[in-house]
Amino acid sequence: MALTEPKMDAVTEPEGVSQSVARFVAELMLEDIPEAALIPAKRMLKDWLGGCVAGGSDGDIDKLVTVAKELTGDTRCVLIGRPERTGPQEAAMINGAIGQVLDFDNSSDENMGFVASPTLPALFAAAQMEPVSGADLLVGFVAALETAIKIGKAMTVSHYEQGWHPTFTCGVLGAAAGVARALKLDTGTTLRALSIATTQASGLRSQFGTEIKPVHSGFAARAGLVSVLLARQEVTANPRPLEAPSGFFKTFSGDTSVTGIVMGNPWSLVEPGIKSRIYPCCFCIHRPIDAVLDILSRKAISAEEVESVDCGVSFWVPDAVSYSRPKTPTEGKFSIEYCLSRTLLEGRRPIPTDYTPDMILEPKVVAFIPRINVYIHEELRERGPGYREFAEVAVHLRDGETLTSRIYWPKGTTQNPLSPEELDRKFADCVEPVLDAASIDSFIARLDGLETLEDAAGLIEPLTTT
Amino acid sequence: MALTEPKMDAVTEPEGVSQSVARFVAELMLEDIPEAALIPAKRMLKDWLGGCVAGGSDGDIDKLVTVAKELTGDTRCVLIGRPERTGPQEAAMINGAIGQVLDFDNSSDENMGFVASPTLPALFAAAQMEPVSGADLLVGFVAALETAIKIGKAMTVSHYEQGWHPTFTCGVLGAAAGVARALKLDTGTTLRALSIATTQASGLRSQFGTEIKPVHSGFAARAGLVSVLLARQEVTANPRPLEAPSGFFKTFSGDTSVTGIVMGNPWSLVEPGIKSRIYPCCFCIHRPIDAVLDILSRKAISAEEVESVDCGVSFWVPDAVSYSRPKTPTEGKFSIEYCLSRTLLEGRRPIPTDYTPDMILEPKVVAFIPRINVYIHEELRERGPGYREFAEVAVHLRDGETLTSRIYWPKGTTQNPLSPEELDRKFADCVEPVLDAASIDSFIARLDGLETLEDAAGLIEPLTTT
Repeated sequence: MALTEPKMDAVTEPEGVSQSVARFVAELMLEDIPEAALIPAKRMLKDWLGGCVAGGSDGDIDKLVTVAKELTGDTRCVLIGRPERTGPQEAAMINGAIGQVLDFDNSSDENMGFVASPTLPALFAAAQMEPVSGADLLVGFVAALETAIKIGKAMTVSHYEQGWHPTFTCGVLGAAAGVARALKLDTGTTLRALSIATTQASGLRSQFGTEIKPVHSGFAARAGLVSVLLARQEVTANPRPLEAPSGFFKTFSGDTSVTGIVMGNPWSLVEPGIKSRIYPCCFCIHRPIDAVLDILSRKAISAEEVESVDCGVSFWVPDAVSYSRPKTPTEGKFSIEYCLSRTLLEGRRPIPTDYTPDMILEPKVVAFIPRINVYIHEELRERGPGYREFAEVAVHLRDGETLTSRIYWPKGTTQNPLSPEELDRKFADCVEPVLDAASIDSFIARLDGLETLEDAAGLIEPLTTT
Repeated sequence: MALTEPKMDAVTEPEGVSQSVARFVAELMLEDIPEAALIPAKRMLKDWLGGCVAGGSDGDIDKLVTVAKELTGDTRCVLIGRPERTGPQEAAMINGAIGQVLDFDNSSDENMGFVASPTLPALFAAAQMEPVSGADLLVGFVAALETAIKIGKAMTVSHYEQGWHPTFTCGVLGAAAGVARALKLDTGTTLRALSIATTQASGLRSQFGTEIKPVHSGFAARAGLVSVLLARQEVTANPRPLEAPSGFFKTFSGDTSVTGIVMGNPWSLVEPGIKSRIYPCCFCIHRPIDAVLDILSRKAISAEEVESVDCGVSFWVPDAVSYSRPKTPTEGKFSIEYCLSRTLLEGRRPIPTDYTPDMILEPKVVAFIPRINVYIHEELRERGPGYREFAEVAVHLRDGETLTSRIYWPKGTTQNPLSPEELDRKFADCVEPVLDAASIDSFIARLDGLETLEDAAGLIEPLTTT
């Protein structure tokens, strides 16, 4: 640490990675984004809004709304799937949690986190504070996704292994980028917003399986929004927030070797694309569920016939999914044992109503859970050169028969995507409490033409309850 | 990572460190705190309030107030040293920044951060949301300090070296603890509040010298307040937030070996105590300033007589104080060159009005700065066994004479503390814009009897401008 090192104010190097991200975001125009990226962006938005309507009535959200009422009497902003309205910070926080509470929203393999829930609530809060067109919201959302995903990807897995939840750490940067673009801020302001977001990034994986975990998205959305408002007032911040010596990359991943991030080539929305969820639980459990459903599709099995179930998973799964005997809905979403028991008992895929307090503690499922044996599959003991993740389930029947299934790409991954029709069915199931069939069609039509809407905020007004 | 590891919900170990901190906070009563701790706590509060009145009028704060007006129309909460009022979240954020903006507030050697600015704004915001007695605010403040400092101390220097700013990372835990105690919450609720605070902890040292750095305190205060409100609604969170495998200690310091934190024995307020600041700039510059003042006390020197100044510092100082040619007030606070030039040119200690935009760029100081040569002293090249930090300044005069001074314990440290009279003088200088001499006396009397006040919020009402 000699004094000959360049000082912060003496640096005259070429455009750094932070600046290049900010410039990409600030200069992004609708016509720069290919249809191949716009189509999945709109699908994500639809999928997220549907999940929010389903999640809004979750009892965990009631608690957050009580806090919002203590904090503000403001009613400018919609809470999706709920009757109440609140202020921008509170709406960003609560809509973030609403989108995440069912573990039913979109995520990215590249940044290992959710990407819609931490970003869209900030965009909609901004659009309810001041006019934002549908086109600007859409471009902002694409900018948010590309920022959150490419920055997360740049840090690689060391970031996750350090204990971070990328939904928050990367989501807050995405939220700041998205709002900055939606409000049409310039490169310098966008860079300040990103910098202010880095110094609010947080979110620990140790909160998985608790009620605060879905609020990570909300904290990210709120901080992203506030970062932009501060940046717009010319609050200064480190101009190299990602690559500075004590900056985001170093502090959050121990890695200072990140030298470049290529934005928009390819678009993360296109290559590799975004994951959708068809089961409302932790993604680590989707492979095992698909394996059980595969077995059930081959043979109709009643739960009484099952002697035991062996579920072989990757070495890191038990760390993420640590509730073998769940006692609450959130723990149930992080329990392989619960999800597989429920799937076998019902003979169908898990649905949101499987994760109520009563269902988690239903005697028949509690009695079945000990038959599930989770182990680390010998082929997946470590992330070696041939590592390619899978889950392998063996169902042993009382009559001696064993049925097995190995799943590499569960339903909803980019390698095994949901069809547009499957997504529409999921959306319709979710919004059924607030929209009738005709309204669903007109809502989808508005959403498909998002870039032509004058006022993006109006889009979510119908998604409230009374 | 074998499956034989204990799962999160199967742990039945004795009370962990998180639980023991929460229990200490929740059970702390006024009569448990010795006078030797209460006296410095009240002194800190006075010192902080004075610094806030001086800082409130800083131009950087105007920007934050503009953002607060965009976010809320609420007027429940005071902004210290300002005419505006705002909502609880916004007041926590802005008062945190007000306390820090002059770099004039209290800090701890043990957690290497500021401890009043991230905690007191949360306590006062809570006291303006619902009734909090003076005694509960005082006990909450002591609990906040002990929590922020002991947790920071437990992580040792690896936390700081990873890039974190303990003012935020530890401050948010202190704020949550303090508010939980002020609102008289039980151990379980306090533990949840601490856990929710861990997953909002952030703050990068790479923001030093920018306008967002003082807002770190505000972010911490706001997050601490919100953590308590969420915890009070029974939002669940990891019950071992500090020591969990992917918890706070592991993620924020890489260190999972922390097994115990001894709260209140000794009290950090007593042993080693808290640092007060008499110069409104980064603490790293206080030793060099004291060395220059020591030299000036021995010989009256005019700036024209000075040929050059050598300033030898510890190896880590240039990393923290990286502006050799500052262009803004915040950069000036992180510039050894500016602070020493100003001290020599004025022949007195730096004062808040030395850090205005005009003063930073005053031609005579800009012309003098190149005479200052900062280097790493050979005895301080690394933190070896005999490491004991100092700064050594040599002033070379044009007539060939050289005067030197080496300072180990600058003014305001626990080894060289400000006297009560010096603190009162600093307070009176700071609050002069809002209180006349008689009001200062009555304010100090109220503050000295804080534990007898029915309503703690009333204390800060007089500290506003019109």
